[in-house]
This record gives sequence, structure tokens and C-alpha cells, in this order.
Amino acid sequence: MTDLLSGFRAMWTELAPIGRRPDGGYDRFAWTGADLELRAWFRRTATARDLVVEQDRNGNLWAWWGHDPAGGAPPAGALATGSHLDSVPGGGAYDGPLGVVAAFLALDELRAGGAAPSRPVAVVGFTEEEGARFGVACLGSKLSVGALDPGRACALLDATGTSLADAMHGAGNDPGALGRDEERMGGLAAFVELHVEQGRFLSDAGAAVGIATEIWPHGRWRICLEGEANHAGTARLEDRRDPMLPFAAAVATARTAAAGRGGLATVGRVAVRPNATNAVAASVEAWLDARAPAEVTLEEIVGEVRAEGERSAAEHGVSCRVVEESRSAAVAFDEELRARVARALGDAAPEMPTGAGHDAGVLAQVVPTSMLFVRNPTGVSHSPDEHASDEDCVDGVRALSRVLEELVWQ
Amino acid sequence: MTDLLSGFRAMWTELAPIGRRPDGGYDRFAWTGADLELRAWFRRTATARDLVVEQDRNGNLWAWWGHDPAGGAPPAGALATGSHLDSVPGGGAYDGPLGVVAAFLALDELRAGGAAPSRPVAVVGFTEEEGARFGVACLGSKLSVGALDPGRACALLDATGTSLADAMHGAGNDPGALGRDEERMGGLAAFVELHVEQGRFLSDAGAAVGIATEIWPHGRWRICLEGEANHAGTARLEDRRDPMLPFAAAVATARTAAAGRGGLATVGRVAVRPNATNAVAASVEAWLDARAPAEVTLEEIVGEVRAEGERSAAEHGVSCRVVEESRSAAVAFDEELRARVARALGDAAPEMPTGAGHDAGVLAQVVPTSMLFVRNPTGVSHSPDEHASDEDCVDGVRALSRVLEELVWQ
Repeated sequence: MTDLLSGFRAMWTELAPIGRRPDGGYDRFAWTGADLELRAWFRRTATARDLVVEQDRNGNLWAWWGHDPAGGAPPAGALATGSHLDSVPGGGAYDGPLGVVAAFLALDELRAGGAAPSRPVAVVGFTEEEGARFGVACLGSKLSVGALDPGRACALLDATGTSLADAMHGAGNDPGALGRDEERMGGLAAFVELHVEQGRFLSDAGAAVGIATEIWPHGRWRICLEGEANHAGTARLEDRRDPMLPFAAAVATARTAAAGRGGLATVGRVAVRPNATNAVAASVEAWLDARAPAEVTLEEIVGEVRAEGERSAAEHGVSCRVVEESRSAAVAFDEELRARVARALGDAAPEMPTGAGHDAGVLAQVVPTSMLFVRNPTGVSHSPDEHASDEDCVDGVRALSRVLEELVWQ
Repeated sequence: MTDLLSGFRAMWTELAPIGRRPDGGYDRFAWTGADLELRAWFRRTATARDLVVEQDRNGNLWAWWGHDPAGGAPPAGALATGSHLDSVPGGGAYDGPLGVVAAFLALDELRAGGAAPSRPVAVVGFTEEEGARFGVACLGSKLSVGALDPGRACALLDATGTSLADAMHGAGNDPGALGRDEERMGGLAAFVELHVEQGRFLSDAGAAVGIATEIWPHGRWRICLEGEANHAGTARLEDRRDPMLPFAAAVATARTAAAGRGGLATVGRVAVRPNATNAVAASVEAWLDARAPAEVTLEEIVGEVRAEGERSAAEHGVSCRVVEESRSAAVAFDEELRARVARALGDAAPEMPTGAGHDAGVLAQVVPTSMLFVRNPTGVSHSPDEHASDEDCVDGVRALSRVLEELVWQ
């Protein structure tokens, strides 16, 4: 246990400065300098363990034990474990990297036994899981399973107008190779992702590690409110077409609609034009993030926000359009795999749903997939306050190692 | 009339392309390329009329008839008329430039009589009236009357972190000379500003030109809401501290508080951190612009917004601070001057209050000042939809010319 703890701390210390802002939050966006540093760290860490590293066509990194990618795609029956290294703007240290670090350490545990694996095992780091730079969450895994058109992906723009194609090209990669990676995905017998919990379920349950049962259906909707710019000091209230007012109504309704149905609804992003103190706004664009235990509940929440936005917009002479930007159906993780994972953990780990999307949710479309969560006492996520104790992280490594042991040799 | 109309159109056509965006709005911010082009236009226009141009210590431009600034400050009893050339982001063509163009053309009318003026007359263009770049409205006129500390002004930063001192220096000016210009202001017997109306008072009254009676007391307040960043997909609603919710409550209350009291309140600018679709916001900063016919009413409106912001913030575990960023007391324009202006216009122009701040409101602190408004049928302002017909603009020029005639030779 002490060795594992110090091993974890050493690895964590190496990662800590990469992409860190003065305020303690992380900016680790795909194909930026910070991302290239993280990729170099991944390669160093793998090479130091004699794992063989490859970057797949979609920019995802794989470190193989028991397989040489120079000889082609992994054989059928391979296992993969890992997560992502990128962050939201000002994100925490754990969301993503903990799953990659735990994967390397769990593999160390497995290999300490000295036996050769009966099937290849890979540590994987997926690209742009957060969608922080190009706006599409789980970019690398979605491309791999064919859930995102490579042409559309290439044309995605970041906030400065740089396309994904140009960003990849600038980092020395060929965006022309993006797309469905059927051979690789088809070869995987299982994918297991360990992730820091993003709520307080485990904290309330008094457990360090839990097993995911499902990912709630969720999506993003863009609320486009077009009014008319005007002078804040002279335009009469009755002459105004102020889009800020239906925006405020939609924000308030998002909370009550979700609260009444046991779901989640959030408006955390807004763009106002011209965004001047003494000007009535011409337009407000806002993004609604909504999640719910069931599709029908999700529809109800979004429908209520839409109805209130439209009602208030009409009252104020503003036009209102609600555009679905992305939508993820419910993911029920593989039952059989989940039962094996639970058995490997001695049936001691609590089972829990999650409202967050993950690469595991994407891979679950084509590969038997499971997820482990590690307790986060603050429950806070996508913030520097996100946290897991070193001891809980090591408990997570041990759990992942037991799961892999069950899968590698059985 | 035809000559004046074609003269107006020719001048307007010269100005039209400067700082124009593809969407038709104008970005004309102090000491940017667009501003330097506008200044060059001012100099050309003045020089073509044998007016003598000077830029004062605060960056304001003066074009003199009957005075040579090389010989020192203007003598006591000088007159000035003009406005500003800068715009809000994406602003209209008329707000500011119409007053400068009208001043040149009115002076042309006066000089067409052939008589020498009994006192010097200047066309003036004030710097950064909108405060669009450095955040302080009426920057040039406030510096001139001593209402803004030059040290504070030098340190003002634009959105890219450039200080006013650096911006002025970069444009070849000495920011060390900024500050109160008592000799110049003390020498002015009157200042008259013509401005496009920013509401529909004149349109409803069926008049092309009106006379301002007063400027409402007004101000800007920054509402600072600090919550906690969190994951939109996993943080339970009851665990959140979401600053977007009290922001929405404050926006809704600003409207009802103003509507119930015959005032104006607007939230047109907001800054959200981290402003990510899948993150509960960590903080929201919003700016409240409020105006009212009386100080006590203004206090009531701001007080009600503050109370509701604080109440909702407390409900959601968010901290709320409301900071007064600027405050302008009511301005009653000089009674005697107004009576003379009204007489010059044959007592036909309606009198009207305004909620907007102007350089005229600043100069009124130290100089007898009056304002003329020109009808804007849309009532829209700070937007490309702001408009005045060429015929109404020429009516404005004629009115300004009659007012100057009354003041120059009487």
C-alpha cells in the first residue's frame, strides 16, 4: 500500500504543473501546448514501463502490454482501460487524468505478478473528452466508434476560428485519417474507465469506490433570442425588444422544471451582443444543459424551458429559437461485465447512475464497457475544488487492478 | 435648402465608410485606427473652410473661426458647438457625428452672410464620449472640466489590457498633459450640442427638432455574484451555488422596478466565468444601467434590484455585492440660454428631457449649455437601426445655425 501511495503521488506530481493557471485551475485543451505536454508525459510514462505507444488515427493514445501495434491492429479479445487528459476551462486536476494514472498503476500491479497476459491490455488516453476547445464532447471516442462524421469534425472551429483540421495539422498530425476505427474498436473485448465522481453519492454512501450502472440521457440546447439593440438611457421600456428578459425567464424556469422532476438543468454559458453597459442587448445566445433519469423526463424539462422562453420572448417582441446541439441517449453499461466487475470487488462497491457523459458511454455503443468512480468529498467538479484523497485514489487503483485481473486471466 | 441637403449628403458620404463593420454597425473607439481616420476627416473638413484646428490637452479637437489657437487660449466669450465622433460597439452612424457635421454646416451658413463674428466660434469633437474603449463615458469632456482625475484616466484599461496612456502615446500624443483645462472652459460663453434623438419623443410630437430641458440622474452599478463552479451533469441541485439564478432574478426585477416608477433600468452586459456549457458558473458579473426623473426614484429602483439580487443570492448560497461604478446627478440646462435658443427657433421646437448622458451634460457644470435633438423615427439608438432622415438633419443644421446666429452677434 505504501509503495502504491508513493507511486501515485510521484505520478500526480509530474502531471500537476501541466496546463495549470495561476488561480489553480487547469486549461488543458486538445492540441494546445498543454495537451502536447500531457501527450509527452503519456509517452514517457508508458516507455518507462516497456509499454508500446501508438497514437491512433483520431489522436487517441494507446500504451500496449502484450501487443506491438507495428504489427497491425490489436487482436480480438484485447482489453483497454483509461480516460482522458484534457480539461474544461479552469477545471480540476482529477477529471480525466485520474483514470489514466490509475490505469498505468493498475497495470503495474498486474505485471508485478510476473505472468504474461493471456490477452493484450492497453492504457488509453482519449482526445478532447470535455469538448472545451471544439465544442463536441468525447471528440476522440466519438470519431473512433463512428458517432461523429470526420468531415464535420475537421471543420469544427475553436474560439479563435482555428479548425480542428488545422490544429491537428499544426501539431504534426494528419486530419485526413480521422474517422471510424472499426478494426480497433472491434478488437476490444472490454473497456473499463475509472473516473473521479462528480457528485457526492459515494461520500454520502461512505464508500471510496463505486460502479456505474448507467448514464442518464442528456443534451445541450442553444437558446437564440433576437431582439433589437437600443440605448439604455433613452429607449422607452414599451418600445424595447430586450432579449435579456426572456433569457432571465428561461434561466429561472430551467431550475424549477428540473427540480420538480428529479433531473438537472443548467445555464452556464451565455453570449450577449453587443454586451455594452449602456445598450439594450440586440441578442442573447444561451446554452441549456439538461439531464434526467429518463428520456421522457428530459423532454419535459426542455419543453418547459422552451415554452417559457417563447412565452416571455413573445411578451417582449423578441424572437426565440431553441436548437438541439447535441443529444446523448441513456447508456446502460453491459450487464454481464458489470456483474463481473462487482464480483471482482467482492460485491462491496455501491452501484450508482451518473448524469455525466464519458468516453465509456460512447464506447459502450460498440464494446462491453464498465465504469468505476472514486469518491470526491466536495462533490464539486469542473473546478479546482474537485478533489479525491490520495488514499481513495489508491483504493481506486486497487479496485481497477482487481477488475483487470479478473478480465485478463479469466 | 437644396445646397444644404447636398452639402450634408456629401459630408455624410465621406464619413460613412470609417469604422464600418460588415454588418453595417460602427466600431469607432478612441485612439484606434478608425478614430484616427475620423480625426483626419475633422482636420480636412476644417482646413477646407479655413478654420484653424487644434487638439487640446485631452485629445478633443477644435476648429476655430475668428481665433488662432497659436496665440493662446480662446478669449472670454467664445462659443462652441459640436459633439463626438466615437461610437458604441456596433453603434449607429448618427450618435455623435451628426452633431459635428451639423456644426460645420451651421458655421458655413453663418459665414455665408460674409460678416465677421463678434466672438470666436469653434466646432468641437470630444474624445471617447461613449466610453466604449476605456469604460468611462464622456472621457474627453470630463477631463476638460476636471470631473475625472488624469492619473485615474491614464490607468484606465481597454479589453486587451492597453492603458489610455499607452493608447494616446501610441497615437503620438502626450498623456502627461491630460487634465482640467480651466482657461479653455472658462473662456466659453456657451456650448450648444446637436444630437440625434435616442427615443421617439419627437416622432410622437411630429417635430423635426427639439430642445433639451434636463438630463435625468443616472448611473451604472456592477452586480458581482460569486458562487461555485460545478459539473452541470452531476452536481445535485441542492448542492449547487449557481450565480446565474440570482442574476436572472435581478434582470427580471430591474424591469419591473423601473416600469413601476417611470424610470429606465437595463442589464445589457454580463460576464460569466468559466462560461462553459457543461459547467455551473463560478461567478456572474452584470452591469445595471439605471435612470430616472428624480434622484429618489433612481435610488428606489437600484435599491429594489439590489434587494432582490441579495435575496435570491442568499437563497442559492451565492455572495452578492453591488458596486456603484459611476453616477451622474441630474443636469438642468441653463435656463437663460434655453430661453434664447427657444426664441431663436420661433418657440416652435418642443422641449423634452432625456435619460442619456452627453458631453453637453458634463460641460453644463462649468459653461452655459444647451442641446438640440433631431428626430429619429425608429427611436432606436446604439444600433445600426438608429436613423434620421436627411431632411430632418438639414432642419437640425438650420436650427443650429439660427441659434448660433442669435449667440454670435447678440
